[in-house]
Amino acid sequence: DGDIDEGKTKAMACVACHGVAGISSNEIWPNLAGQKAGYLVKQLKAFRDGTRSDPVMSSMAKTLSDPDIDDLAAYYSSL
Amino acid sequence: DGDIDEGKTKAMACVACHGVAGISSNEIWPNLAGQKAGYLVKQLKAFRDGTRSDPVMSSMAKTLSDPDIDDLAAYYSSL
Repeated sequence: DGDIDEGKTKAMACVACHGVAGISSNEIWPNLAGQKAGYLVKQLKAFRDGTRSDPVMSSMAKTLSDPDIDDLAAYYSSL
Repeated sequence: DGDIDEGKTKAMACVACHGVAGISSNEIWPNLAGQKAGYLVKQLKAFRDGTRSDPVMSSMAKTLSDPDIDDLAAYYSSL
Protein backbone atom coordinates (compact mmCIF):
# COMPACT_ATOMS: atom_id res chain seq x y z
CA ASP A 1 0.00 0.00 0.00
CA GLY A 2 0.89 3.65 -0.34
CA ASP A 3 2.44 5.94 2.25
CA ILE A 4 0.11 8.66 3.50
CA ASP A 5 2.85 11.15 4.46
CA GLU A 6 4.64 10.66 1.15
CA GLY A 7 1.28 11.11 -0.56
CA LYS A 8 0.62 14.36 1.26
CA THR A 9 3.89 15.80 -0.03
CA LYS A 10 3.26 14.59 -3.57
CA ALA A 11 -0.28 16.01 -3.40
CA MET A 12 1.13 19.54 -3.41
CA ALA A 13 0.77 19.32 -7.17
CA CYS A 14 -2.93 18.53 -6.87
CA VAL A 15 -4.01 21.19 -4.40
CA ALA A 16 -4.71 23.86 -6.97
CA CYS A 17 -7.71 21.93 -8.36
CA HIS A 18 -8.56 19.34 -5.73
CA GLY A 19 -8.23 21.68 -2.74
CA VAL A 20 -5.99 21.65 0.32
CA ALA A 21 -8.02 18.87 1.98
CA GLY A 22 -9.25 17.09 -1.12
CA ILE A 23 -12.44 19.11 -1.45
CA SER A 24 -12.24 20.77 -4.82
CA SER A 25 -12.87 24.44 -5.47
CA ASN A 26 -14.84 23.88 -8.66
CA GLU A 27 -18.07 22.04 -9.52
CA ILE A 28 -16.46 20.05 -12.30
CA TRP A 29 -13.36 18.84 -10.44
CA PRO A 30 -14.02 15.89 -8.15
CA ASN A 31 -13.60 15.85 -4.43
CA LEU A 32 -10.97 13.23 -3.59
CA ALA A 33 -11.22 13.25 0.21
CA GLY A 34 -12.35 9.86 1.50
CA GLN A 35 -12.54 8.34 -1.97
CA LYS A 36 -11.72 4.63 -2.34
CA ALA A 37 -7.95 4.15 -2.72
CA GLY A 38 -8.41 1.37 -5.26
CA TYR A 39 -10.64 3.58 -7.39
CA LEU A 40 -8.10 6.44 -7.28
CA VAL A 41 -5.28 4.07 -8.31
CA LYS A 42 -7.38 2.72 -11.18
CA GLN A 43 -8.27 6.20 -12.45
CA LEU A 44 -4.74 7.65 -12.18
CA LYS A 45 -3.38 4.66 -14.10
CA ALA A 46 -6.16 5.09 -16.69
CA PHE A 47 -5.20 8.75 -17.15
CA ARG A 48 -1.54 7.71 -17.36
CA ASP A 49 -2.07 4.97 -19.95
CA GLY A 50 -4.75 6.88 -21.89
CA THR A 51 -7.76 4.63 -21.34
CA ARG A 52 -9.29 7.65 -19.67
CA SER A 53 -8.47 11.14 -20.87
CA ASP A 54 -8.79 14.69 -19.63
CA PRO A 55 -6.84 17.72 -20.83
CA VAL A 56 -5.34 18.36 -17.39
CA MET A 57 -5.25 14.94 -15.77
CA SER A 58 -3.70 13.16 -18.73
CA SER A 59 -0.62 15.37 -18.52
CA MET A 60 -0.53 15.34 -14.70
CA ALA A 61 -0.64 11.56 -14.58
CA LYS A 62 2.04 11.07 -17.24
CA THR A 63 4.75 11.92 -14.70
CA LEU A 64 3.50 9.63 -11.94
CA SER A 65 5.22 6.38 -10.99
CA ASP A 66 3.31 3.46 -9.47
CA PRO A 67 4.58 4.33 -5.95
CA ASP A 68 3.52 7.95 -6.50
CA ILE A 69 0.04 6.74 -7.42
CA ASP A 70 -0.16 4.42 -4.42
CA ASP A 71 0.98 7.19 -2.06
CA LEU A 72 -1.48 9.73 -3.50
CA ALA A 73 -4.34 7.22 -3.27
CA ALA A 74 -3.42 6.35 0.33
CA TYR A 75 -3.30 10.02 1.24
CA TYR A 76 -6.60 11.09 -0.31
CA SER A 77 -8.52 8.05 0.91
CA SER A 78 -7.28 8.84 4.42
CA LEU A 79 -8.93 12.27 4.45
CA ASP B 1 -30.89 21.74 -10.97
CA GLY B 2 -31.91 18.20 -10.12
CA ASP B 3 -34.48 17.03 -7.61
CA ILE B 4 -33.01 15.24 -4.61
CA ASP B 5 -36.09 13.12 -3.83
CA GLU B 6 -36.49 12.09 -7.47
CA GLY B 7 -32.78 11.29 -7.46
CA LYS B 8 -33.10 9.09 -4.41
CA THR B 9 -35.75 7.01 -6.14
CA LYS B 10 -33.75 6.73 -9.34
CA ALA B 11 -30.66 5.79 -7.31
CA MET B 12 -32.25 2.46 -6.41
CA ALA B 13 -30.49 1.18 -9.53
CA CYS B 14 -27.12 2.32 -8.21
CA VAL B 15 -27.25 0.98 -4.67
CA ALA B 16 -25.87 -2.44 -5.49
CA CYS B 17 -22.43 -0.99 -6.33
CA HIS B 18 -22.41 2.50 -4.83
CA GLY B 19 -24.01 1.55 -1.52
CA VAL B 20 -27.21 2.61 0.21
CA ALA B 21 -25.73 5.99 1.24
CA GLY B 22 -23.31 6.45 -1.62
CA ILE B 23 -20.39 4.75 0.09
CA SER B 24 -19.46 1.85 -2.14
CA SER B 25 -18.91 -1.68 -0.99
CA ASN B 26 -15.87 -2.30 -3.16
CA GLU B 27 -12.42 -0.70 -3.42
CA ILE B 28 -12.73 -0.13 -7.14
CA TRP B 29 -16.20 1.47 -7.23
CA PRO B 30 -16.17 5.14 -6.23
CA ASN B 31 -17.94 6.62 -3.28
CA LEU B 32 -20.49 9.12 -4.59
CA ALA B 33 -21.66 10.66 -1.31
CA GLY B 34 -20.82 14.36 -1.19
CA GLN B 35 -19.24 14.36 -4.63
CA LYS B 36 -19.56 17.54 -6.74
CA ALA B 37 -22.87 17.53 -8.65
CA GLY B 38 -21.26 19.10 -11.73
CA TYR B 39 -18.60 16.38 -11.78
CA LEU B 40 -21.23 13.63 -11.49
CA VAL B 41 -23.25 15.13 -14.35
CA LYS B 42 -20.14 15.40 -16.52
CA GLN B 43 -19.11 11.79 -15.85
CA LEU B 44 -22.61 10.28 -16.36
CA LYS B 45 -22.90 12.12 -19.68
CA ALA B 46 -19.40 10.93 -20.63
CA PHE B 47 -20.41 7.33 -19.90
CA ARG B 48 -23.63 7.89 -21.86
CA ASP B 49 -21.96 9.40 -24.94
CA GLY B 50 -18.92 7.09 -24.80
CA THR B 51 -16.16 9.61 -24.11
CA ARG B 52 -15.59 7.64 -20.95
CA SER B 53 -16.20 3.91 -20.85
CA ASP B 54 -16.66 1.21 -18.27
CA PRO B 55 -18.26 -2.21 -18.77
CA VAL B 56 -20.97 -1.55 -16.20
CA MET B 57 -21.37 2.23 -16.23
CA SER B 58 -21.58 2.55 -20.00
CA SER B 59 -24.68 0.36 -20.08
CA MET B 60 -26.17 1.91 -16.94
CA ALA B 61 -25.80 5.42 -18.31
CA LYS B 62 -27.27 4.59 -21.74
CA THR B 63 -30.79 4.59 -20.29
CA LEU B 64 -30.46 7.90 -18.42
CA SER B 65 -32.15 11.11 -19.57
CA ASP B 66 -30.71 14.54 -18.75
CA PRO B 67 -33.27 15.05 -15.93
CA ASP B 68 -32.38 11.60 -14.54
CA ILE B 69 -28.71 12.62 -14.51
CA ASP B 70 -29.45 15.96 -12.84
CA ASP B 71 -31.62 14.28 -10.19
CA LEU B 72 -29.01 11.59 -9.45
CA ALA B 73 -26.26 14.21 -9.20
CA ALA B 74 -28.36 16.37 -6.89
CA TYR B 75 -29.12 13.38 -4.70
CA TYR B 76 -25.57 12.05 -4.34
CA SER B 77 -24.00 15.46 -3.83
CA SER B 78 -26.52 16.05 -1.02
CA LEU B 79 -25.28 13.07 0.98
